[in-house]
Amino acid sequence: MITPISYRDGAVELLDQTRLPQEAVVLKIREFRELARAIRELKVRGAPAIGLAAAYGVVLGLQNLELEDEAQLDRRFQEVVEELKRTRPTAVNLFWALERMARAFKESRAKGLGLAELKRALLAEAEAIHREDIEANKRIGRLGAELLPEGATVLTHCNAGALATGGYGTALGVVRSAWEMGRLRKVLVSETRPLLQGARLTAWELEQEGIPYELITDGMAGWLMARGEVGAVVVGADRIARNGDTANKIGTYSLAVLAHHHKIPFYVAAPSSTLDPACPTGREIPLEERSPEEVTTIRGVRLAPAGASARNPAFDVTPHEMISAIITERGVLRPPLAEAIADVLP
Amino acid sequence: MITPISYRDGAVELLDQTRLPQEAVVLKIREFRELARAIRELKVRGAPAIGLAAAYGVVLGLQNLELEDEAQLDRRFQEVVEELKRTRPTAVNLFWALERMARAFKESRAKGLGLAELKRALLAEAEAIHREDIEANKRIGRLGAELLPEGATVLTHCNAGALATGGYGTALGVVRSAWEMGRLRKVLVSETRPLLQGARLTAWELEQEGIPYELITDGMAGWLMARGEVGAVVVGADRIARNGDTANKIGTYSLAVLAHHHKIPFYVAAPSSTLDPACPTGREIPLEERSPEEVTTIRGVRLAPAGASARNPAFDVTPHEMISAIITERGVLRPPLAEAIADVLP
Repeated sequence: MITPISYRDGAVELLDQTRLPQEAVVLKIREFRELARAIRELKVRGAPAIGLAAAYGVVLGLQNLELEDEAQLDRRFQEVVEELKRTRPTAVNLFWALERMARAFKESRAKGLGLAELKRALLAEAEAIHREDIEANKRIGRLGAELLPEGATVLTHCNAGALATGGYGTALGVVRSAWEMGRLRKVLVSETRPLLQGARLTAWELEQEGIPYELITDGMAGWLMARGEVGAVVVGADRIARNGDTANKIGTYSLAVLAHHHKIPFYVAAPSSTLDPACPTGREIPLEERSPEEVTTIRGVRLAPAGASARNPAFDVTPHEMISAIITERGVLRPPLAEAIADVLP
Repeated sequence: MITPISYRDGAVELLDQTRLPQEAVVLKIREFRELARAIRELKVRGAPAIGLAAAYGVVLGLQNLELEDEAQLDRRFQEVVEELKRTRPTAVNLFWALERMARAFKESRAKGLGLAELKRALLAEAEAIHREDIEANKRIGRLGAELLPEGATVLTHCNAGALATGGYGTALGVVRSAWEMGRLRKVLVSETRPLLQGARLTAWELEQEGIPYELITDGMAGWLMARGEVGAVVVGADRIARNGDTANKIGTYSLAVLAHHHKIPFYVAAPSSTLDPACPTGREIPLEERSPEEVTTIRGVRLAPAGASARNPAFDVTPHEMISAIITERGVLRPPLAEAIADVLP
């Protein structure tokens, strides 16, 4: 099994996703600021994995503290959480995981735990988030695979795989389960410019597992749908509003419109931690804009003329009307999505 | 003015489009087989430019002949034409231009012209094709610009510019005219994976002319449409069937569906030489498939894992129902396109 992130002997071990598929380099990170930088620089990415990394980041942020002064402990905790919150704006799992860590911190403090016990409690919470995420993915995988037609060709975008989660994956969890059940014919992997998470990461995962796939450029998806070559689209999510509007990697919206036009089911696979009760609709979801350099170059090679200006919205929002179902570990949510989401939110 | 191709002193001078935007290298080609290779390798590309290159290729193929035997002359002409025909299958302008050259050849032979006169007649025909193409582009530009709303943001795909034609351009001819008339706000340039004709060539042309543009990845187009940032889509064409179905660079079909969904006008700009009376519908248009390497690498840099399989349809077909108008030098063709096309075909 592909493990994108783990914690051992005081270090977070991260599989550096910027260097895949060329090299599988594991970084050992012992300092929370370094982990925050790794999130910003996409060495770890994917909504659930970002949340998990941040949870382990809190563990790193407190692990070397030798404090007597309790006020200093609270301040340090706040400082660590604030720095981690500032890394990426769109994936709500980041804020959700930090919220869980804050609750664990507060409870430990309320119980009057000593510093060593408090650190152990925080590590236990991060590990629980990790374990629950993998369990959620496996359940999402099973539920999603059952939705697919027999012998389906599934189109997926970006990477919502083991690398984007605690392991196993959301959209790729559905693919993995369908493959195990013998229901999958092959995967069409859209390369996902600018950062090529499809070509680099999803293709790498599928290659590792021997699941048949074909890489396509983002512009080919519509034409393959028109030719009847796509049975279903399955993507992950970075944040889902209360009405079902879903933020995900740029290009997802185009795929949803194209699937809608061709009457192909369009599924979002995500753990319930991706549902944001604080966002009534997609309009309230903050969408990250990244550097134009990511568009004008590929892996350090300049593509466009010197001086070229470029846009780089990193995410888009797919309106709930275009989503056939949201597959969560709490069940398959079907339209009307607002009601189905209200039923599974705490 | 950008000149992608010209003929001087026995050589075809080609601006090597595979090396743009990094270097503007002019190749001097004196041998028709070398010109055929340049077409296959996309050193010259774009439907009207391919036709023009083939016409000059015929000139090269005969220019060094010193024959007495007339049967040998006919055989040589056939050999040259057949080799040029085999370079690229989709752009009908290639076959159209070779047809014109064959007519000029036959007429010269019927008149009993001597070899030197025959060669001059073929060069004159190629130069006429060139001159007429530029004139057609300028008229297409004017007619198209008048269709655009005041202050329009135009999205274009691939490169249908001066580089793709005898000069000036079809879709970019519309852009140039609109800019000259003060009707254009800016251009959104989709990079057009796999070969990045948008990022490399269209951006280079617009940079040369100081026309404001922003580069986007192919997956961003839908989202920018949803946000109201696209006033019109204008693309070129490689072949237009009698019913208006239009083959163009892969990704065009997706843009047409997205434009349709967002009620944004979608225009095809092409000279009448792109209309193919022999194709009743898009189903009869031969669509080139190219090497998967173009998808798994960019400019020599490997993107996907070793062993990755990829698809590479180089063209797609946009159904006539999704085209707001076809802008030709013979006028703006509006739906029902089949009737409008019948009116301008000879």
